[in-house]
Amino acid sequence: MAEDPIDETFRMIRDMRIRGAGRIARAAVKALKDYVSTTDFSSNQELYDKILRAGMKLKSARPTAVSLPNAVNLVLSVAKKNRERNISVKELKELISESCNHFIRTSERAIQAIANIGSKRIVDGDIILTHCNSEAVTAIFTNAKKSGKNFEVYVTETRPRYQGRLTASVLAKRGITVYLIPDSAARLYMHKVDKVLVGADAIASNGAVVNKIGTSQIALVAHESRSRFYVAAETYKLHPTTMLGELVEIEQRSPFEVVPRSWIKENPKVQVKNPAFDVTPPEYIDIIITEQGIYPPQGIVFLMRELYPEP
Amino acid sequence: MAEDPIDETFRMIRDMRIRGAGRIARAAVKALKDYVSTTDFSSNQELYDKILRAGMKLKSARPTAVSLPNAVNLVLSVAKKNRERNISVKELKELISESCNHFIRTSERAIQAIANIGSKRIVDGDIILTHCNSEAVTAIFTNAKKSGKNFEVYVTETRPRYQGRLTASVLAKRGITVYLIPDSAARLYMHKVDKVLVGADAIASNGAVVNKIGTSQIALVAHESRSRFYVAAETYKLHPTTMLGELVEIEQRSPFEVVPRSWIKENPKVQVKNPAFDVTPPEYIDIIITEQGIYPPQGIVFLMRELYPEP
Amino acid sequence: MAEDPIDETFRMIRDMRIRGAGRIARAAVKALKDYVSTTDFSSNQELYDKILRAGMKLKSARPTAVSLPNAVNLVLSVAKKNRERNISVKELKELISESCNHFIRTSERAIQAIANIGSKRIVDGDIILTHCNSEAVTAIFTNAKKSGKNFEVYVTETRPRYQGRLTASVLAKRGITVYLIPDSAARLYMHKVDKVLVGADAIASNGAVVNKIGTSQIALVAHESRSRFYVAAETYKLHPTTMLGELVEIEQRSPFEVVPRSWIKENPKVQVKNPAFDVTPPEYIDIIITEQGIYPPQGIVFLMRELYPEP
Amino acid sequence: MAEDPIDETFRMIRDMRIRGAGRIARAAVKALKDYVSTTDFSSNQELYDKILRAGMKLKSARPTAVSLPNAVNLVLSVAKKNRERNISVKELKELISESCNHFIRTSERAIQAIANIGSKRIVDGDIILTHCNSEAVTAIFTNAKKSGKNFEVYVTETRPRYQGRLTASVLAKRGITVYLIPDSAARLYMHKVDKVLVGADAIASNGAVVNKIGTSQIALVAHESRSRFYVAAETYKLHPTTMLGELVEIEQRSPFEVVPRSWIKENPKVQVKNPAFDVTPPEYIDIIITEQGIYPPQGIVFLMRELYPEP
Amino acid sequence: MAEDPIDETFRMIRDMRIRGAGRIARAAVKALKDYVSTTDFSSNQELYDKILRAGMKLKSARPTAVSLPNAVNLVLSVAKKNRERNISVKELKELISESCNHFIRTSERAIQAIANIGSKRIVDGDIILTHCNSEAVTAIFTNAKKSGKNFEVYVTETRPRYQGRLTASVLAKRGITVYLIPDSAARLYMHKVDKVLVGADAIASNGAVVNKIGTSQIALVAHESRSRFYVAAETYKLHPTTMLGELVEIEQRSPFEVVPRSWIKENPKVQVKNPAFDVTPPEYIDIIITEQGIYPPQGIVFLMRELYPEP
Amino acid sequence: MAEDPIDETFRMIRDMRIRGAGRIARAAVKALKDYVSTTDFSSNQELYDKILRAGMKLKSARPTAVSLPNAVNLVLSVAKKNRERNISVKELKELISESCNHFIRTSERAIQAIANIGSKRIVDGDIILTHCNSEAVTAIFTNAKKSGKNFEVYVTETRPRYQGRLTASVLAKRGITVYLIPDSAARLYMHKVDKVLVGADAIASNGAVVNKIGTSQIALVAHESRSRFYVAAETYKLHPTTMLGELVEIEQRSPFEVVPRSWIKENPKVQVKNPAFDVTPPEYIDIIITEQGIYPPQGIVFLMRELYPEP
Repeated sequence: MAEDPIDETFRMIRDMRIRGAGRIARAAVKALKDYVSTTDFSSNQELYDKILRAGMKLKSARPTAVSLPNAVNLVLSVAKKNRERNISVKELKELISESCNHFIRTSERAIQAIANIGSKRIVDGDIILTHCNSEAVTAIFTNAKKSGKNFEVYVTETRPRYQGRLTASVLAKRGITVYLIPDSAARLYMHKVDKVLVGADAIASNGAVVNKIGTSQIALVAHESRSRFYVAAETYKLHPTTMLGELVEIEQRSPFEVVPRSWIKENPKVQVKNPAFDVTPPEYIDIIITEQGIYPPQGIVFLMRELYPEP
Repeated sequence: MAEDPIDETFRMIRDMRIRGAGRIARAAVKALKDYVSTTDFSSNQELYDKILRAGMKLKSARPTAVSLPNAVNLVLSVAKKNRERNISVKELKELISESCNHFIRTSERAIQAIANIGSKRIVDGDIILTHCNSEAVTAIFTNAKKSGKNFEVYVTETRPRYQGRLTASVLAKRGITVYLIPDSAARLYMHKVDKVLVGADAIASNGAVVNKIGTSQIALVAHESRSRFYVAAETYKLHPTTMLGELVEIEQRSPFEVVPRSWIKENPKVQVKNPAFDVTPPEYIDIIITEQGIYPPQGIVFLMRELYPEP
Repeated sequence: MAEDPIDETFRMIRDMRIRGAGRIARAAVKALKDYVSTTDFSSNQELYDKILRAGMKLKSARPTAVSLPNAVNLVLSVAKKNRERNISVKELKELISESCNHFIRTSERAIQAIANIGSKRIVDGDIILTHCNSEAVTAIFTNAKKSGKNFEVYVTETRPRYQGRLTASVLAKRGITVYLIPDSAARLYMHKVDKVLVGADAIASNGAVVNKIGTSQIALVAHESRSRFYVAAETYKLHPTTMLGELVEIEQRSPFEVVPRSWIKENPKVQVKNPAFDVTPPEYIDIIITEQGIYPPQGIVFLMRELYPEP
Repeated sequence: MAEDPIDETFRMIRDMRIRGAGRIARAAVKALKDYVSTTDFSSNQELYDKILRAGMKLKSARPTAVSLPNAVNLVLSVAKKNRERNISVKELKELISESCNHFIRTSERAIQAIANIGSKRIVDGDIILTHCNSEAVTAIFTNAKKSGKNFEVYVTETRPRYQGRLTASVLAKRGITVYLIPDSAARLYMHKVDKVLVGADAIASNGAVVNKIGTSQIALVAHESRSRFYVAAETYKLHPTTMLGELVEIEQRSPFEVVPRSWIKENPKVQVKNPAFDVTPPEYIDIIITEQGIYPPQGIVFLMRELYPEP
Repeated sequence: MAEDPIDETFRMIRDMRIRGAGRIARAAVKALKDYVSTTDFSSNQELYDKILRAGMKLKSARPTAVSLPNAVNLVLSVAKKNRERNISVKELKELISESCNHFIRTSERAIQAIANIGSKRIVDGDIILTHCNSEAVTAIFTNAKKSGKNFEVYVTETRPRYQGRLTASVLAKRGITVYLIPDSAARLYMHKVDKVLVGADAIASNGAVVNKIGTSQIALVAHESRSRFYVAAETYKLHPTTMLGELVEIEQRSPFEVVPRSWIKENPKVQVKNPAFDVTPPEYIDIIITEQGIYPPQGIVFLMRELYPEP
Repeated sequence: MAEDPIDETFRMIRDMRIRGAGRIARAAVKALKDYVSTTDFSSNQELYDKILRAGMKLKSARPTAVSLPNAVNLVLSVAKKNRERNISVKELKELISESCNHFIRTSERAIQAIANIGSKRIVDGDIILTHCNSEAVTAIFTNAKKSGKNFEVYVTETRPRYQGRLTASVLAKRGITVYLIPDSAARLYMHKVDKVLVGADAIASNGAVVNKIGTSQIALVAHESRSRFYVAAETYKLHPTTMLGELVEIEQRSPFEVVPRSWIKENPKVQVKNPAFDVTPPEYIDIIITEQGIYPPQGIVFLMRELYPEP
């Protein structure tokens, strides 16, 4: 018997077989769409009750990935808004299905839109620094390169998991001049750097950006020598409940990413800390490049209210 | 047949069998002393000519370690000053031998003097961050712990060679509460940190401090949240020829310290940069703790002129 | 004979028998509601003319308290908008009465909503500093304490009228650890402080916050050591005519609040200044917590335009 | 035969017989209006096609003056929106004509509205510095003077074309105390200056202001001593395509504005640079005064989205 | 029987019948001089042993007043240096007596020298802010006024003991225009202020200045708007053992200076903090005016080494 | 009859036939030497009295050029120190003559020494900005070019007298790539600039540098983007009486340097200000390059005390 699309998708996200903010979001929406279309409901209210439960399950798969609840909530809000209108269950199903399709299409286009917008900000001769590995950032660089621009990229190795090596590898293969540096060398090279460009994991209502550990340090270094600091992020990275006071939790990961197990055994009293993210305050960010255009970080709250009117 | 003390010491320093600013300096001085005492000279001028040659050879063993030329030059200046006075070769030999002994004693005491002075700046409840592995810094922490003070230390792992692990290991064994963190996490924890304490490889006449790559970034982060930033350094770290305009060269080390050889093979176009040091400007340094007392970085020039009157 | 509700309320506000931004606003709206419901009007136009006059009188009771004109203007705008629609006087009265009730309910809920939102930003172990005495700030602390959070609060005494003592007293009675300090000691303790939390008397369209004298100094000190600076304020503290260039006047109060009368007699040539408020620029404010959610100060202009479309 | 209004206006703008952001915009709109009213179109689609071509021609007259495309695009959008509605060509012409009239009226009123709003920010005793020559700034000063305020103005000479002399001359004739200073003396006098007030050539979506070369330097100097920095600009200075990543180009003008021709002949190897504009980042700007009210620079994006919904 | 001069002076300093850094120092030196001249010693060594004990007793009278040990140590060093020279007890007594007289004369002249030097930095039209009550600062203002300069002074009241009232009173009586303001109003008036001028209780080897609580906050506010910040201090305020790591202790005074006893009874859980001093870092200080001339704070270490060669 | 060397030199300096800090100083010393050698004195005291008078006359020729009194005072101090020693008039004359020769030689070597020291700080690929026209700066650039270094120089035109054109012309003729820019364009190009290098007219005891108007603005701009800021100055630019409180006066020059006479006639009410110098605070200066080596600005006070022990 075919598995319930909700359960299946829940497991794939939880077990990280589906990864990346955009892919997770689209998979969850697809699951909701399939679930609604393949299930019989006796009334709009029943449909709403059940999709609400399905959505909550999906959201619990990765509690800190804000793109997941954002995507699910968008679908749920369509169900909620329309359940009491005088329409048939079939009509409600169609509305939901449409909203799911719309989200998926929009999400797929977001990265490309960001690449188009962001690459205009790269000019010939630019020296740009990036940290970690971001789909949006890579797309911007690729787009700029395709349009014939000449620029160089410094990539930090991004301890402890070295995602910077992946970025360096990909960009070099696209013909871009790439330098790989230890994270702690950012300030040594910053005076030459014209722009820093990074992605985001979540954006709070005051414009603060949650991203890979080390980002805020680089932002400070860029600010010190007035190099521009750009963030590229799809709008489903906006974290609407930060408007209501919620804090974005900083995940602590395993110490074994930082030191070998043998070292910990030999040094049992040393406490190894491995925070995954840090928070870059808005005063160090020049612009946030979204698929809806370029915003100052302090202006992102209005995009948030427009897109997520009921946090 | 016993080897020439100059040649032997030259090789041991060059091949890094003797390491550490203090140990290198003392070994070179010891070699000069042995060389002078075991060699026959027909005149004071001959003695001077030969010790000058011996000194230049020793200095070339590690061209960027400023403690080495500083130590050698101190001995050479005794020879130079006294060669034309109306004294016998034997008397000149004794003067040189004495000055060598004096340097060695002074140098041995310098770390302990710094530990005594610096540990007074640590108070109960302090949270202190350090970077890399410094003999003077470890001595300060050890002294403070012995005198019964309670404090915690954050140690950065210090990519690419992880000297921070050594520091963490040593401090933990001395009963100090230690946290080991990736270099890029310094800003995340800095608001809790009361003081940063690091060593130095060289200090320029304007008070700028050359130290392990990443130091200047941590100094900036400390400055941002007004955590105090202390440097501990023996006075033979002062770089007198910076007064005359000379720049301290930043050593570029092997890329294989940063990425495995296999990775470089797979990514031949990525240029890996591995600078060993960076420069922390004086405005981010609160005090420099020397065995001669505590100086503001901008005041170090006068200690330099006193100790090295003829750069 | 029962007094006219407008006259009575006008006097009570003017003579400070009714105090506090929220209470003043609700009293004025209540007075308008009573006045409209107990008066006979021959036409919608007459009603509008008279309520306009009543509103202007009420607004003159405390010219600098922005919550008062904001509340009155909201009611007047209902009268203005509806006077020419084809509805009866009775219907217009009902619309106005409804809008009054709505304002009063909203205002009563605003403090609690701010407490709910703001208390989420307090975490275990926080050390928070506050200045003066703010209803919204006290509500946030109370809410956080009730939800089991452990935190400590530094309260400045707030010269010259010592409202900080009242804050300290209230918080201590609610079981919160409280330190009372002179205003000039804020910087000495700031490095330990995680967050500063203050109220507001008025907020300008560019996000500048007018609050008790000394607030801007504390904001600067917090900024220096990158402690977060939060403002809690109901949205009727927004000052819509600042959009049109108006400046918020800084009230100068009596010198006798600062020195005893006898001292002034003995020192007739010393000019004593007693400004009641100062202006904190937006660059020192991290977030403004309103009952409508958390905004960066530079984003408050859009809340202003939404809530007060016709300044 | 009367010349085509499009061609004529195109030439007058190109040849700078019509100058100034506002005047250019109004002339172009007037030309479109005349063109539409005096031309016969067989269908709405034909009208749209032709007005589109006319608009593109006008826009090409001064490619970097953002007020010109903004004005033309507003008219074109009316044509575009209405061409497929079931209305006659005559009705469409009327809609377009109406929108042209509306733009012209609005534009004429904008300067006066800015003068009214901005002059409220000037108080007795103010010392204000301005740079270059701005219609909006002059209007604010004139309005403030007329309303009886006493203030002094420092005017920079504004190399290389000395527009500051014009400003100084005009203000002095209106009875304002004026000091003319070389551009490089701004910092010497800044500590006395309460406010800086300048115009704008274009404003980007993140609040950055493009204005006469030297503006950003003065903004930095004002920021250093916390003098307020105000920008006065009509909303057709907003540059909507910056939202989509477009950069505002910095015009390089002739070297002969900087040095005499003879000097260049004698020094053929010296490269003379004459950039016309620079970019002031939003963190140095306190407020932007528009005819729609006062905004923080980071809030200007929402005015941009409201006024130019389809960049 | 006449009391021992050491015991008597010890008690007068301890009980604060002698107050003020200069007066305390001179009284202690006077006591040592009297003690030596009126006592019989069998040898130079006995003299040294006894004056050492006398000096230690005097120094213990007010352990944190650095002028006291500085003065005593100067006298002791004369005894120490000369005890083993081949001179008679009488000759040693004379040397000590001379050095005492010299210190007293020097100290008396120091304030006047500072007044002469410092008053040259005041120019017509200056607006100057001061905090607390400093003999050196008052002398500078008095000197400047006598020499016919016109300037205005803002004086903070200086909670909790209101020493600012004393300063305001004295200056006003000397014909200077004086404004008395609450401590928290410093930032409101700072933009008008040209210079801040304060005294010092102790100066550390890195140029940090220990002074009345609130000083560092005012220094930060002055730095924010680039008002100059001057410290006036006699050289016996230099704290030589800070060179050796010693920290200057911040005295915590009685809570009853901050709140009435009755308030503490009613609010037993509120902890009242009353720190007497804070530390102003050198980066916020422009110059230190001593009787030996004007130094940048970072240069004070060399005056310290010259005056106190053996900390 | 041959003119008195004092009178003649006085007139040539006053009338600016002798210009430039170094040349003025050498001319005055030469005049004193000639005067002493060609005059008969009956006693050492007479010699001293007369040379004192001669020196005062010379110093009055250009009261603000600090190199002039510095040079004269050096000679006078030799006369003063030796007049009461038991030496003949002839011997005293010789001592004075020797000291004059020594000063002249030293001064002639100073520029070359600065060139040697400073040019070591220039590295291949550097982009350097300079302002105005400085002998020491030109010598550094020339030296660096001769030693084969490749670098580019941005030169500000330096309104109002365009000394930057002279600098640009000279450097270009020596084969250096030169860009000439308006003063107000410094910030536009600063992010590319590695180092700023300027001369000095006077240096105060706290390290503040008095130089051509506009220097402090450029220093601020360099500081903003952390470009290094270097000052090159001979030690006779040190202003020793600033130690004793004296302020360096800022010369106001003729308005006709700023605007044509005709313009002033047409605009009689505009006040034209033409300050010749401004003051760059030490916190914006990285190093001061003297012939005695490289100092941080805050360390210059000790060079001052060494060279001018009796200000």
